[in-house]
Amino acid sequence: MALTYKSAGVDIAAADAFVSHVFDVAKSTLTDGVVAHRLGYSGLFRPKWGGMRDPLLAATCDGVGTKLKVAIEVGRYQGLGQDLVAMNVNDLLPLGARPLLFLDYIAVGAIARPVMDAIIAGVAAACRETGCALLGGETAEMPGVYHHGDFDLAGFAVGLVDGARLPQPEQIAPGDVVLALASTGIHSNGLSLARQALFEKGGLRVADRPAELTEPLGVALLTPTALYVKAVLALFERYQVKGAAHVTGGGLLGRVEKLSRPGARLLLHPEAYSRPPIFAVIQRAGGISDAEMARTFNLGLGFVVVVDASTADLVERDSGLGFIRVGEVVAGDRGVELGYARSE
Amino acid sequence: MALTYKSAGVDIAAADAFVSHVFDVAKSTLTDGVVAHRLGYSGLFRPKWGGMRDPLLAATCDGVGTKLKVAIEVGRYQGLGQDLVAMNVNDLLPLGARPLLFLDYIAVGAIARPVMDAIIAGVAAACRETGCALLGGETAEMPGVYHHGDFDLAGFAVGLVDGARLPQPEQIAPGDVVLALASTGIHSNGLSLARQALFEKGGLRVADRPAELTEPLGVALLTPTALYVKAVLALFERYQVKGAAHVTGGGLLGRVEKLSRPGARLLLHPEAYSRPPIFAVIQRAGGISDAEMARTFNLGLGFVVVVDASTADLVERDSGLGFIRVGEVVAGDRGVELGYARSE
Repeated sequence: MALTYKSAGVDIAAADAFVSHVFDVAKSTLTDGVVAHRLGYSGLFRPKWGGMRDPLLAATCDGVGTKLKVAIEVGRYQGLGQDLVAMNVNDLLPLGARPLLFLDYIAVGAIARPVMDAIIAGVAAACRETGCALLGGETAEMPGVYHHGDFDLAGFAVGLVDGARLPQPEQIAPGDVVLALASTGIHSNGLSLARQALFEKGGLRVADRPAELTEPLGVALLTPTALYVKAVLALFERYQVKGAAHVTGGGLLGRVEKLSRPGARLLLHPEAYSRPPIFAVIQRAGGISDAEMARTFNLGLGFVVVVDASTADLVERDSGLGFIRVGEVVAGDRGVELGYARSE
Repeated sequence: MALTYKSAGVDIAAADAFVSHVFDVAKSTLTDGVVAHRLGYSGLFRPKWGGMRDPLLAATCDGVGTKLKVAIEVGRYQGLGQDLVAMNVNDLLPLGARPLLFLDYIAVGAIARPVMDAIIAGVAAACRETGCALLGGETAEMPGVYHHGDFDLAGFAVGLVDGARLPQPEQIAPGDVVLALASTGIHSNGLSLARQALFEKGGLRVADRPAELTEPLGVALLTPTALYVKAVLALFERYQVKGAAHVTGGGLLGRVEKLSRPGARLLLHPEAYSRPPIFAVIQRAGGISDAEMARTFNLGLGFVVVVDASTADLVERDSGLGFIRVGEVVAGDRGVELGYARSE
């Protein structure tokens, strides 16, 4: 038998059909910056920097980690698309950059349309929600790398920001206020620890519903990562922001710690915000310490900013933004105190 | 035992140490467009569009496919870094876009420094070679997704091009000339078919040296993808280019076909260029048809452009660029003829 690419496990026709579907879905995300052309090797985008003194590009790359293992177990995939977009566009926000465009990388053992269609539908919906064009991407068929329905996702976002208006975290000082946006749950960080705690050590299954939860464990874990673009861009447009953190790898403690400096210690009050119940379930199942929880998970706060006290009053009254007051900056060593955990 | 992120298979300290190493390595790639800042969620870049009438961003995403399975088998990884950069920055070139910045996604089961260090060294060298800043990236530890030393790589590149100077492939007409840059070998496309032909059907091993080759099969397959940035940007700066193709998925036939249109058929002469011997080895081992070879592999030509006849004379004499005359545009149906294979 003569070999063909298809006999080698790579189905070009199936891949082409999926790519064609992605093009159709992406149309709903195309903003007026997108420039149509016929060559197709790259996507073209015309950024609008009118009025900016120092237009800068911001670029970021991220994946969804082992959250996709939970999605495979539960058989729900659409939320992963939002997770992928959120992990990238939210990472543009600490600098106040507006997302312009997004590209996705989907690697599979073999084209599996229902799964991939659900993911790309989620990607496109999140792109629309954040005004970010799905400008391109890559579908990689890699038989022998990915097995048994496994796959991987990576994303890439480019944003635009005026270099003259970047936040200046070195101006954070005692008396400043810490504001935050609530997380929707575990988001896309710490899933390896959560899975080991819940499913290995805890012996739970994705269909179980622990007493704290109103939905099955797998569904709770899959709650998509919040998209903070609208709220944070509105904040940057209306107010002076000194520093900001997207709470991802390193957890609430690790990420907020980076906003502190010698002489400016951040104090967060755990009673000021609610902790999604999934975290108690994970902590109990795994016997995980408070410190390890705080260094791994967002624990209820997905995006944290520091502003001066008078700005904080205004932002709190700007109820459309959704920021809540969760702490303050005090004199002291570099570091953060969460009440139940602290950095040194 | 209390669970920690490390006990869950995610070694934050090892990941942080690698990320720190990447930052050190990336310093050698930083061009004067890179803007330093301390927040670290995204990379910042100041594009220079001075003199451009319509500055556009071009963005692309690609991986190296199953070439990484060959690298794992042979135990040579550095070339994959160049493959990853090349697959992305070369995809900016058909539009004449200059690469500005690159981001990499490396997903592993567990941090494996010698392998990852070699890859990132290759990425950085290729970025330096092409004047592209390694502006960021993501290292994903995903125990349970990647096993047994497996990993995956994806890359993203952003370039800048003047929209007023994009090639206009609709102007390709009979009498035009097809010029090309030689490939260095299989590049990063068709590896799944090559591996099945050579190692499964052909029963060969990576250490074998078929008569046509001067080096072991595995080493020949791993020859890094050519970086076409310097030659193609110089071509676009000096001459009018009507259309261009980076020869990747779809092979020489599929990619060149897209430059044709009704009334302008592309005719390539196989005697005008040399075909790296690896292709004969693959074809014989797999019993692969000429047509399937031409729809899968670059067969010796990695980048193809179409210019008018008088420009072709000038480019041929511009010996620093390395373009060779490989064919012409003739009147006829949309399609391409390669001598041994044709589209229809």
